[in-house]
Amino acid sequence: MKEKTIKHILTLEGNGQEVLVEGWIRTRRDSKEVSFIAVNDGSTMNSIQVVLDRTFPGYDDINPRLVNGASVSIKGKLVPSPGKEQSAEVSPFEINILGDAPAEEYPLQKKRHSFEFLREIAHLRPRTNTFGSVMRVRNAMSFAIHKYFNDNGFVYVHTPVITGSDCEGAGEMFHVTNFDLNNIPKTEGKIDFTKDFFGKEASLTVSGQLEAEIYALALKNVYTFGPTFRAEKSNTSRHLAEFWMIEPEMAFCDINGNMDTAEKFIKYILRYVLENCSDDMNFFNSMIEKGIIENLEHIAESKFERITYTDAINELKKSGKTFEYPVEWGIDMQSEHEKFLTQEIYKKPVIVTDYPKDIKAFYMKLNDDGKTVRAMDVLVPRLGEIIGGSERESDYNKLLGRIREMGLNEKDYWWYLELRKYGSAPHSGFGLGFERLIQFVTGMQNIRDVIPFPRCVDTLEF
Amino acid sequence: MKEKTIKHILTLEGNGQEVLVEGWIRTRRDSKEVSFIAVNDGSTMNSIQVVLDRTFPGYDDINPRLVNGASVSIKGKLVPSPGKEQSAEVSPFEINILGDAPAEEYPLQKKRHSFEFLREIAHLRPRTNTFGSVMRVRNAMSFAIHKYFNDNGFVYVHTPVITGSDCEGAGEMFHVTNFDLNNIPKTEGKIDFTKDFFGKEASLTVSGQLEAEIYALALKNVYTFGPTFRAEKSNTSRHLAEFWMIEPEMAFCDINGNMDTAEKFIKYILRYVLENCSDDMNFFNSMIEKGIIENLEHIAESKFERITYTDAINELKKSGKTFEYPVEWGIDMQSEHEKFLTQEIYKKPVIVTDYPKDIKAFYMKLNDDGKTVRAMDVLVPRLGEIIGGSERESDYNKLLGRIREMGLNEKDYWWYLELRKYGSAPHSGFGLGFERLIQFVTGMQNIRDVIPFPRCVDTLEF
Repeated sequence: MKEKTIKHILTLEGNGQEVLVEGWIRTRRDSKEVSFIAVNDGSTMNSIQVVLDRTFPGYDDINPRLVNGASVSIKGKLVPSPGKEQSAEVSPFEINILGDAPAEEYPLQKKRHSFEFLREIAHLRPRTNTFGSVMRVRNAMSFAIHKYFNDNGFVYVHTPVITGSDCEGAGEMFHVTNFDLNNIPKTEGKIDFTKDFFGKEASLTVSGQLEAEIYALALKNVYTFGPTFRAEKSNTSRHLAEFWMIEPEMAFCDINGNMDTAEKFIKYILRYVLENCSDDMNFFNSMIEKGIIENLEHIAESKFERITYTDAINELKKSGKTFEYPVEWGIDMQSEHEKFLTQEIYKKPVIVTDYPKDIKAFYMKLNDDGKTVRAMDVLVPRLGEIIGGSERESDYNKLLGRIREMGLNEKDYWWYLELRKYGSAPHSGFGLGFERLIQFVTGMQNIRDVIPFPRCVDTLEF
Repeated sequence: MKEKTIKHILTLEGNGQEVLVEGWIRTRRDSKEVSFIAVNDGSTMNSIQVVLDRTFPGYDDINPRLVNGASVSIKGKLVPSPGKEQSAEVSPFEINILGDAPAEEYPLQKKRHSFEFLREIAHLRPRTNTFGSVMRVRNAMSFAIHKYFNDNGFVYVHTPVITGSDCEGAGEMFHVTNFDLNNIPKTEGKIDFTKDFFGKEASLTVSGQLEAEIYALALKNVYTFGPTFRAEKSNTSRHLAEFWMIEPEMAFCDINGNMDTAEKFIKYILRYVLENCSDDMNFFNSMIEKGIIENLEHIAESKFERITYTDAINELKKSGKTFEYPVEWGIDMQSEHEKFLTQEIYKKPVIVTDYPKDIKAFYMKLNDDGKTVRAMDVLVPRLGEIIGGSERESDYNKLLGRIREMGLNEKDYWWYLELRKYGSAPHSGFGLGFERLIQFVTGMQNIRDVIPFPRCVDTLEF
């Protein structure tokens, strides 16, 4: 009986069997003869109801302490419930209060708190309905990701967090150092990184892709799923300095195989959550984003549209719609354009391919036209871009040409170039931000509310 | 036919069906009439044999390029093999060389390379037998970890990598900063961290435990599995500056439940690998550590011994064995003591509990004797300590007392203390280093050889 969670107990019938209920009190409602106590342990949205009779020995001492937030261990019998909300309830014979939660002090009152306030008490917010649901869905999505890749023969590669290259090319990076910051060693006026821990300048990674390519070109299908970092000083609801990213990489796979995987992957995750988190999803559907379940079901059943960037630009122009940012071949599409394509024109996810090379990274495979690259971005309703990927340049000379053309230092890329020198193969991959995917699935508006402890500009508590 | 890996093709019968073989050549052996080409794609240890007849159109051009390391795409028929090593082989009708690997340049020659040398070419080492096997086993173990916890109702919590507290108390930490290191802002001679990205001093985490406790005290059973960091300048075969750690945390769980979980967890992982990675494990068993399979099977079937620290010290003294570090109650046990207990005295895993409080962390639950804490370490043969854990102090006043006694700053622990103020509950957890577990399972001697890209003192390539 020790290992039963409330989730498990709620599946049992009220046939008089003994149960041990351990959890935190969510509500207590006193009537003339009994107190109704809802106990939750976070294993599920739902609480179990304990009905405490006023004749219970010591009732007058115990009952006032059975308040919101207190933790209890209750032994009792599971009996049929006359109430409509549950089929069984607990008739207790032993109640232990393990931890009080003084009502006048406890920051989580029964009233509804703003998400802003809850971020300030991130050590208590997982005890609320919303954050409990977010974290259970986050957990289910994490597992679904690992299961999808495992079932499909992908090897999980832990690419490093600390990196010596700033060649990943995605904006500002955090420094990592073991220097005494009051006394940084210099040689001829320049910082002497040979004296730092790693003997060279070190940063926090912005992507595991380049290292994942190493493993794809050895083990065929691999993926990363780990923390990545941006030292971008954007204090918005869409930015985190630390977030988790998923990056599959496949050898002997061109952009078409890449699109197939991206589409299958997204649909798998959505179906998994819909099937495995129905209580939490019903909560989001009614309290956070009306209609989100239907929306996700629709996406899981749609065939994703596939169009080229050039066609997408033409469609946007043809639409007659006036955008804040004018549409012209060569522009980096803005969120308004992406959303219009997926929400208004196609009304389902859209995969846009073959972007102008000038707005994409150096490692993407150049098309024969010399102007576009084999990029592919997946756009979804409500969010816009959710996946960015490409077929990678696998030709040594073309890659070297692109590195030089973009003014990058080819010495930094020695091993990346060597992958194209020794047993090169067509390969492709994509990346997606895990927190954005969670926002998409839950409807949560602020990215800080879908990660346990958000790290942002001026935000580093807990 | 596109998505088949060589692992899959090797399960098929040689009934003349067409297959597409994509991979890298491991060996080629020419006889008078045919060339035998072994192709591997990293999906398994094993290669598939392609038998190329000298009458094949263009043989003289193609065959010299079919060298170790070249990548190929071969279409052919799967036919019965007369050889003993495989039941089917490929008779090709189309061969495409996707990427050459010039024999005079390719760093991975057919001879056996030292692990030291292979670390220098970490972008190519996953193409070797040893590192392919290590990474497939690492992957299987990662999945087994997630599956164990998922099946047992644990929620995966991504605790943060960047932390604002140095209160985790486990040695030197790396600084994380966005400062221009040439020009660090100071106010009255002191570094002004309010001007840094997070507005305060930031470091890389050494443990997710304290944050995991937050989630355990909301969702009952949780775990972390992520990168952790030590800025310790130890250049040994046992140290990494960046490594992955697993930390489950359980509410309403005392040290006994903690030991039960630790034992079940270890056994589950071992059984999973033995069942799912037999080819790779056979390789380790014959090439890396003789008898390791039998050893792991024995552990998976043993009931772990449970003894107190005090009894363990007495057993060591009674043994009459002379240790480098003398045995006395109060010592922090060394590896030699741990190994003697598990290998010589009990000949199976041993869980040692109730260590002197002075050698353990502040957060461990104090026993009634006032001298020992409810710590538990799991010791295994060959390795010594593999898991360290404890029941946590759940009493506010006792915890505060310990924080003060150890000279820690209680302000740094405000939220950790509040967990004991609001709905506190008995809770327990443990931590284990993933790479050490992989070493234990594979027999690999150097920790740098069980992680894709090791980060150590003066080591930050790739």
